[in-house]
Amino acid sequence: MPTLDICFSPELLPLFDLKGKVAVVVDVLRATSSIVTALAAGVTHMMPFSELAECRAMAAQGYLTAAERDGRQAEGVDLGNSPFGYLDGVVAVQGRAVAITTTNGTRALHLAAAADEILVGAFLNLGAVADYLRQLNQDVVVVCAGWKGHFCLEDTLFGGALAARLAAEGGFDTTSSDATLAALDLWAAAAPDLSGYLLRSAHVRRLNSLEAHQDMEFCIRQDQYDLVPVFRNGRITA
Amino acid sequence: MPTLDICFSPELLPLFDLKGKVAVVVDVLRATSSIVTALAAGVTHMMPFSELAECRAMAAQGYLTAAERDGRQAEGVDLGNSPFGYLDGVVAVQGRAVAITTTNGTRALHLAAAADEILVGAFLNLGAVADYLRQLNQDVVVVCAGWKGHFCLEDTLFGGALAARLAAEGGFDTTSSDATLAALDLWAAAAPDLSGYLLRSAHVRRLNSLEAHQDMEFCIRQDQYDLVPVFRNGRITA
Repeated sequence: MPTLDICFSPELLPLFDLKGKVAVVVDVLRATSSIVTALAAGVTHMMPFSELAECRAMAAQGYLTAAERDGRQAEGVDLGNSPFGYLDGVVAVQGRAVAITTTNGTRALHLAAAADEILVGAFLNLGAVADYLRQLNQDVVVVCAGWKGHFCLEDTLFGGALAARLAAEGGFDTTSSDATLAALDLWAAAAPDLSGYLLRSAHVRRLNSLEAHQDMEFCIRQDQYDLVPVFRNGRITA
Repeated sequence: MPTLDICFSPELLPLFDLKGKVAVVVDVLRATSSIVTALAAGVTHMMPFSELAECRAMAAQGYLTAAERDGRQAEGVDLGNSPFGYLDGVVAVQGRAVAITTTNGTRALHLAAAADEILVGAFLNLGAVADYLRQLNQDVVVVCAGWKGHFCLEDTLFGGALAARLAAEGGFDTTSSDATLAALDLWAAAAPDLSGYLLRSAHVRRLNSLEAHQDMEFCIRQDQYDLVPVFRNGRITA
């Protein structure tokens, strides 16, 4: 039976052997939520970059640019890291490609390169990710983007929610790592009031603003989009 | 108000600035539990080593040697990593010094070197550690030894139990990091039946034997010993 393990920080990824496994990269607040939303809103594909300068340079190739550093939109780019940037109509995104760089999420995508397949996960596409993982039927490692390498509740809770979905229908072993056991218990504690639970978290308080709270409320909605972004050959497509 | 943060793995320690802070190193199963027990049983001091050869060499200086690799006692040493080694009378430990090396715990002690003060924590001396931290009144980082760098439930639960003790009497901020919030919630879930909870954990199943279960039941007893081992200048003393 394939296993589901959870890596709480990109800094711990060297401990995981991703070869032959599926990586689900998650940065609930907000990179992977934004990526899912962007592709649902008609963006053709996205290219994640680690460096701001590389991301900005893609404008010359006709890309929209999206960049966040320390929770704020970087200067000289079209979009920040809010999923609403792909929904509010201020920037026309349909049919466009987007180059993106964020503090944590895009780095995690690149660090997962050794995996057989790299999926982009968020609460917004939780069910779609679970369904796809069941089809693939391979060992899974959820790669939490965290905050500058630190453990983050929201990404861990996504891991717990995914493990709970997969465990509920059988076919996956979610008991073989302490990280997964912990995430399942945290998810059980948080699920009845996910918003209230996350309002205590360090990251949510760090993004303490009206925009951030709207983003958070949006990013924790489950199963809004029935698509699974896949990161292959430098590109994320649905 | 001083804060309590928790580092879930020695691999994450580079993210923490330990300067001016107190580190509480914990390896519940079993290094720090054994160290607390050893000092309570009359061992004069302990010297932790990363390398087995260094540890063994201390026999020539009159030290008892204690060594564990992958859960088992190493060859050619006096003691393994079970706290009962200091209690069962097979080896006379009173008044002796002990050189010790273990897979995870002794490494974590050395990695915490940047801290102002390094304490050795375990459930066995939980209350004594909490009392001493209140006296010191400095920021605290609980350093979980983990298992070969991986997140471990038992060390995290110690962090949660310590945070709960300190939070209950006020004077410490246990809400400023997601790691501490998570550990507190896991402790709340585990505390009513800590033994049953840990029987699910990967590490406990890894040490799946009668001896390991006896060790586990002993190591999760709270407040058995009223002493706080301190690691200074290469030596651990009470």
